[in-house]
Amino acid sequence: MARTGRRPGTGGTKERILAAARSDFARAGFEGATIRGIAAHARVDPALVLHYFESKDGAFRAAVQFPVDPAEFIPKLLAPGLDGLGERLVRFFVETWDSPAGSPLLGVIRSVVGNEDAATLMREFVQRQVLGRIARALELDQPQLRATLAASQLIGLAMLRYVVKVEPLASARTDEVVAWLGPTVQHYLTDPDVAKPTRVSRRRR
Amino acid sequence: MARTGRRPGTGGTKERILAAARSDFARAGFEGATIRGIAAHARVDPALVLHYFESKDGAFRAAVQFPVDPAEFIPKLLAPGLDGLGERLVRFFVETWDSPAGSPLLGVIRSVVGNEDAATLMREFVQRQVLGRIARALELDQPQLRATLAASQLIGLAMLRYVVKVEPLASARTDEVVAWLGPTVQHYLTDPDVAKPTRVSRRRR
Repeated sequence: MARTGRRPGTGGTKERILAAARSDFARAGFEGATIRGIAAHARVDPALVLHYFESKDGAFRAAVQFPVDPAEFIPKLLAPGLDGLGERLVRFFVETWDSPAGSPLLGVIRSVVGNEDAATLMREFVQRQVLGRIARALELDQPQLRATLAASQLIGLAMLRYVVKVEPLASARTDEVVAWLGPTVQHYLTDPDVAKPTRVSRRRR
Repeated sequence: MARTGRRPGTGGTKERILAAARSDFARAGFEGATIRGIAAHARVDPALVLHYFESKDGAFRAAVQFPVDPAEFIPKLLAPGLDGLGERLVRFFVETWDSPAGSPLLGVIRSVVGNEDAATLMREFVQRQVLGRIARALELDQPQLRATLAASQLIGLAMLRYVVKVEPLASARTDEVVAWLGPTVQHYLTDPDVAKPTRVSRRRR
């Protein structure tokens, strides 16, 4: 899918940079890849990479074709504090999928499931740009675990509501989905019980 | 993918029946499709369909390439009662994915995500063979909703642990995963609060 050869015509340069970015991020990871390296790989000036994508973060997000910017939406969701964070996350997630960004998100799921390199890229993107940001804000034990458990519930929601389309999840109103799943996401993010995993807990039944 | 023309050579007959089954189940649904119709479509005797797949259920399961039989595992999981059902479901799910059945399950996810017909087939299969069986056993309000919410958590687990491979979920021991997610699945299946979705619940925070 990613080719780095020079192409004629307008728009080819941006595509070439993106292909180089995909290849470099997949090979070297986010830390290892550089704007300079991507530019060399795409045979353009580094300034052109920054012109199109603003930063390494921006190039990474474009490389994984993620339609919303975690640097923007996560601070907004976190700003009111931990109280109600689970419900805000579920609501934002559903509203994003129900918006024009939903269709590219479906594309992201398709490429991640179908392609090992895309899965590697997405793993690094999600861990760094999404889960890492939430984990740093939590100030609780096992923040990475908490963010990952919350993500597992959200991805499962996307699979059943938007991919397989199982009722009643597929047609439920946003408020209903928030009421059903918000408490779970909140539990993962802030419940002290979550971080005691050594024995099978029988407490919450 | 599904072709129904006659093919030469051994093994072709079973494949032809499967292709006919996939096409008939996708077009007519489980209720609408018949052993007789699948046989006619594959140009074989209905007895041959039963020889290979035992029943319409069996042909359906083979058509969606589901590697475990819900008619077998669900009654086993339900037998000890509702108490601890969430943890038993999570444990069975993880153990199945970690077994030789995991690789075909990944194939199921790939085809469902990549192909609308496969998603339709899987939706009917999961609703009827998996969620329906659990819902009937629950004897609680909104059983279909409960089973679907539980499934959303399990599918999300599969996506993060086996497809995208996000840590710490990817390398966690079965017992840890059961301790983290079992209470959530149990909550969806049996908590009276789940079935009051008209307003955003603020109780469980």
